[in-house]
Amino acid sequence: MNCFMDKDFLLDTETAKKLFHSYCENMPVCDYHCHLNPEEIYENRSPADISELWLKGDHYKWRAMRSCGISEDYCTGNKTGKEKFEKFAYALQYAIGNPLYHWAHIELQKYFNIDMPLCVKTADEIYDRANYVIKNGDFRPQSLIMKSNVKVVCTTDDPIDDLKYHKLLKDVEGFDCKVLPSFRPDKALNMHLDGFSDYIMQLGKAAGTEIKSYRDVIKALLKRADYFNETGCRISDQSFDYIPFTIAEDDEIEAVFSRAMSGAAVSREEAEGYRTKVLLALGEKYHQLGWAMEIHIGAMRNNNTAMFNAKGADIGFDSIGDENIAYSLSRFLDALNVKGRLPKTVLFNLNNKDNTVLASMLGNFQSEEAESKMQFGPAWWFLDHLDGMTEQMKVLGNLGILGKFIGMETDSRSFTSYGRHDYFRRILCRLLGRWVEDGWYANDENLLKEIVCGISYNNAMQYFDFK
Amino acid sequence: MNCFMDKDFLLDTETAKKLFHSYCENMPVCDYHCHLNPEEIYENRSPADISELWLKGDHYKWRAMRSCGISEDYCTGNKTGKEKFEKFAYALQYAIGNPLYHWAHIELQKYFNIDMPLCVKTADEIYDRANYVIKNGDFRPQSLIMKSNVKVVCTTDDPIDDLKYHKLLKDVEGFDCKVLPSFRPDKALNMHLDGFSDYIMQLGKAAGTEIKSYRDVIKALLKRADYFNETGCRISDQSFDYIPFTIAEDDEIEAVFSRAMSGAAVSREEAEGYRTKVLLALGEKYHQLGWAMEIHIGAMRNNNTAMFNAKGADIGFDSIGDENIAYSLSRFLDALNVKGRLPKTVLFNLNNKDNTVLASMLGNFQSEEAESKMQFGPAWWFLDHLDGMTEQMKVLGNLGILGKFIGMETDSRSFTSYGRHDYFRRILCRLLGRWVEDGWYANDENLLKEIVCGISYNNAMQYFDFK
Amino acid sequence: MNCFMDKDFLLDTETAKKLFHSYCENMPVCDYHCHLNPEEIYENRSPADISELWLKGDHYKWRAMRSCGISEDYCTGNKTGKEKFEKFAYALQYAIGNPLYHWAHIELQKYFNIDMPLCVKTADEIYDRANYVIKNGDFRPQSLIMKSNVKVVCTTDDPIDDLKYHKLLKDVEGFDCKVLPSFRPDKALNMHLDGFSDYIMQLGKAAGTEIKSYRDVIKALLKRADYFNETGCRISDQSFDYIPFTIAEDDEIEAVFSRAMSGAAVSREEAEGYRTKVLLALGEKYHQLGWAMEIHIGAMRNNNTAMFNAKGADIGFDSIGDENIAYSLSRFLDALNVKGRLPKTVLFNLNNKDNTVLASMLGNFQSEEAESKMQFGPAWWFLDHLDGMTEQMKVLGNLGILGKFIGMETDSRSFTSYGRHDYFRRILCRLLGRWVEDGWYANDENLLKEIVCGISYNNAMQYFDFK
Repeated sequence: MNCFMDKDFLLDTETAKKLFHSYCENMPVCDYHCHLNPEEIYENRSPADISELWLKGDHYKWRAMRSCGISEDYCTGNKTGKEKFEKFAYALQYAIGNPLYHWAHIELQKYFNIDMPLCVKTADEIYDRANYVIKNGDFRPQSLIMKSNVKVVCTTDDPIDDLKYHKLLKDVEGFDCKVLPSFRPDKALNMHLDGFSDYIMQLGKAAGTEIKSYRDVIKALLKRADYFNETGCRISDQSFDYIPFTIAEDDEIEAVFSRAMSGAAVSREEAEGYRTKVLLALGEKYHQLGWAMEIHIGAMRNNNTAMFNAKGADIGFDSIGDENIAYSLSRFLDALNVKGRLPKTVLFNLNNKDNTVLASMLGNFQSEEAESKMQFGPAWWFLDHLDGMTEQMKVLGNLGILGKFIGMETDSRSFTSYGRHDYFRRILCRLLGRWVEDGWYANDENLLKEIVCGISYNNAMQYFDFK
Repeated sequence: MNCFMDKDFLLDTETAKKLFHSYCENMPVCDYHCHLNPEEIYENRSPADISELWLKGDHYKWRAMRSCGISEDYCTGNKTGKEKFEKFAYALQYAIGNPLYHWAHIELQKYFNIDMPLCVKTADEIYDRANYVIKNGDFRPQSLIMKSNVKVVCTTDDPIDDLKYHKLLKDVEGFDCKVLPSFRPDKALNMHLDGFSDYIMQLGKAAGTEIKSYRDVIKALLKRADYFNETGCRISDQSFDYIPFTIAEDDEIEAVFSRAMSGAAVSREEAEGYRTKVLLALGEKYHQLGWAMEIHIGAMRNNNTAMFNAKGADIGFDSIGDENIAYSLSRFLDALNVKGRLPKTVLFNLNNKDNTVLASMLGNFQSEEAESKMQFGPAWWFLDHLDGMTEQMKVLGNLGILGKFIGMETDSRSFTSYGRHDYFRRILCRLLGRWVEDGWYANDENLLKEIVCGISYNNAMQYFDFK
Repeated sequence: MNCFMDKDFLLDTETAKKLFHSYCENMPVCDYHCHLNPEEIYENRSPADISELWLKGDHYKWRAMRSCGISEDYCTGNKTGKEKFEKFAYALQYAIGNPLYHWAHIELQKYFNIDMPLCVKTADEIYDRANYVIKNGDFRPQSLIMKSNVKVVCTTDDPIDDLKYHKLLKDVEGFDCKVLPSFRPDKALNMHLDGFSDYIMQLGKAAGTEIKSYRDVIKALLKRADYFNETGCRISDQSFDYIPFTIAEDDEIEAVFSRAMSGAAVSREEAEGYRTKVLLALGEKYHQLGWAMEIHIGAMRNNNTAMFNAKGADIGFDSIGDENIAYSLSRFLDALNVKGRLPKTVLFNLNNKDNTVLASMLGNFQSEEAESKMQFGPAWWFLDHLDGMTEQMKVLGNLGILGKFIGMETDSRSFTSYGRHDYFRRILCRLLGRWVEDGWYANDENLLKEIVCGISYNNAMQYFDFK
């Protein structure tokens, strides 16, 4: 019987322990994709209590609580911090097998030095102890980031964003972490969703151009990309429920665009020609700027209309879609590649059925522009757990070159989620340690060290060209 | 080397053994979904021999036999019990890795006290011993059900059924098991399949109303639902190859309905408006009655036309479909939820590619109406095996709250299939025991006991509100 | 810590070791599907060095190299053998978890007696040692095939092929292996792809008939099938990205056919009626000839237009497709079965999401024509690795009769790839050994021997009726 989540948590071979403790554990963190708020990092306020830290904006935890029949009052509602924390502890004790269970305990250990399992019985004690630590320690964002040894944070930003806080953060003394923007043009692409025309007006304003045609949208986006680039951006990010790919004629696209701008509803199918054209133009731009293009595929968002109307987006009512993606993704990547303009690309899937589709797709477009120019993104969101991460690495191992993998990002909105890098590295060392001890890979310590340190940190730093 | 399927079968840690033998093993059974025939339970006849018990109606076994090139004469045909049993033993010895192999041996142990592996060499001896036990014991349905400690059996019934045997069974002295109907309106929904108009006529008759419009279908179904409710029904069940969801105008639906009633063929696409409308009306009714709505997704039925014409349905010529389901399922559930009328729902998938789609879908519609109001149904039919059940629980663990899972049902047509609950509980304890011994979950015996007993029995009793 | 890939590689139980070393290891090989070139077998030339042997035509290795950012010059280009080998060693050391890593070392051990792990540090030494062995040994194709104990090789051949080398090979003295053609009519079916009309002209010529209508295509194909049959062919093979199945009228088909023959482009959808009709006619013919029909589903080919234009097909720019296949595959098989003309069929999937779809589909069409007349083909191409093979056998175990499985083929273009049979057999024994030692299957040595020898060799020999 192993001890509960002790220092060798998940490390079930001597090789795994050695790889983790000697090499991985203390590598810095390159968090190349997350949803941290740069303003919050800059403002650098301390949380009032562990409930604010843990439960204010975390849809993972809210979903767990709702799944136990807990009222919305304890999730996004007005109950007190203590009331919320007790309900969360109730949910957590039944969340056996859930990454939340591990994340919570890793964070309790890492940031609060609390080793006790959290459950209904221990909730009040842990609540008090954690708050004592918060009160007497430094839980401000910049401190948490630096304590977590994070060297780069890439936030997720709208092209119309002025990046004010990214700029301000460059000059914060003693804060030794690059906070860089990522360019996420989803709203400019989603012609078929509400709010498109308003958004396009804002985009024109941000870019200082008048937008009269869909070509002006492209011009405005490219201008904003240049602006992002000057502010240190190296990454773009787009999220799709499926991959839109339809080559349409210019005047067709223009006609649909006009309709959308007049406020009329446009169907997903009608929007495809526009989306494809804009996306291709962006892809070329990313290539020119030397950026990496991240594509997140498969989220089906805002499924609960009642809650969306009451509370808005991103609060835990999204789930996994299941559209077919192989053909259109292949055509999209090829359309850029045939012109020699395919940027470095990171493909993320939310539906695990797409693991082998993506991991085999990479091989179609590798080139000497980079080592593993085409990357298979780490297991993400609903797949961000022990099974999902293991599976992602096995599939990449089987179908690509795992040793060149850029590894983990948090995709998180929380300043204590850096424990997920620790979790990921343990899973990585567990997997490789097992392979070595089973005699499946040569027991070559130097090479293994290079590989695990590469996947933990070095590969991403080199791939994205962070210095 | 472990002994062959002994008392610790599948229990590979001390924690697993403890959880199973101390807590799960002797919990009662709540079989909340099966295909037992209430008339057979009431008539309570003893089988002639083990071939009648095992091979009379079991398409799992027939499929295994056919896969070994065994003639239909030994499956659904007229060969003697002994001849059939010998052929089955031949097939079974090659069925390494098949749940049938485990089910058969669990049943031999549990009901016949036979520990010997069944193969060609032992077939005759086992055939004789088993028949001796049948002859000298009590293998009548009611006795088997009680011996299996089953407290609730939910059969699967057509809305036109008069539920005569369910009523009669309430008054059978000494038979301490509730046999409750479930409401399965598939035939009223499947406008695109043969026999629709005839069925609708029967439905009208059963409901005592004349059916002139599709609205009358709804009225008749709601009336029958009330009738089922009075007879103790707490569950509806629907089975789809995919999820039909199209909002159509009333007159459109009416026009298609008229055509169908006149005997004309209606395509799957044409039928969608009708199906959606009827299903939504039923969903609201289930919510009003406090029923749970089971949705079984992904069976592709009657693939072999020659055998269907010769022998009919449900004899082993069905397989797993692969349609995309996420979007339409989300829209269907949301349409009920937005009106505050989404019933408790259990989602079952036959294609394992849908595991994460369903398990993440749950979280979109949880509410305080119940603990895990939205349930991920246990691995079913072609997934009802060690790998499938383990995977289902891992996925639910990763994406939901495993501790609130309602657990296993047999989905069976056989009175000795209660060994599958034993099998399921062993797999459950194996999984959780491993997690605890690896230090992945707190070694808190009280909590673990609550969780395994909950999943074995208590959660389902509470969820469906059986008393 | 196990030794690196030693004689017990992958054999982690005593039962696995016993099954492999006592029974499987020395069974002959029946390679019922590969892409070896019969002319090369006949010409029987020795390779110049290990780079020619390993890197001349192996897209697996090229993909691995490209994924490390290695220039095309080292893959399909003009770099020297030594330069290419060094780059390959670089890629291989990062290919942790990739089957290529195991294949390469199995081949080094089996054919070169080199036990050292291949990496950058050892590349030059291994290059020299391997070349010494080639120079002083016999690495001609016929010798490699015989040394690998291969009794049957089924190549993949176009219907227009004259099969000259298959005929010549029958008379090569001392070469004790049957080299049989397989009939692969893809080009005649792919009306929607470039080159169709030219190909049809060649087909007519090969068959000695003038092709004026699509019916003439069928006639020509059936004639060629007879010719192949006379030359020892027992197997047909077709590869689809999806399963075309549309029943169209004769004159519709004829009209589309005429257009295609005139050189006009025909869409995938338009081609379906033709493809279905021709495929059904071929299926009936296969049944009449007693052939097995192999169907390879899910390859998405030639994704990289730039490389296709520069270098052609089959050089490593293919990946896994994700179309829905269950319904049309069911309809296709049923259309043949309902006429009593469904041949023995082997279904292969490239997308692992289809594992359960195919394995459950088998059961719809089993019959007494053969033991497991419907076969689930072994894990193939992108799934041909430890995880993929294990998964394929588990799924077949769960849903069919694993004991009647026809086992492995290489699907390879290389004469040293017979190590993959060794790899497969180790994985088979690992899986079954574990089940037996866990007490999940009876420890019946005779039966286990029959099963593992069956899957290794005997089942395929019997199934395809090779003598």
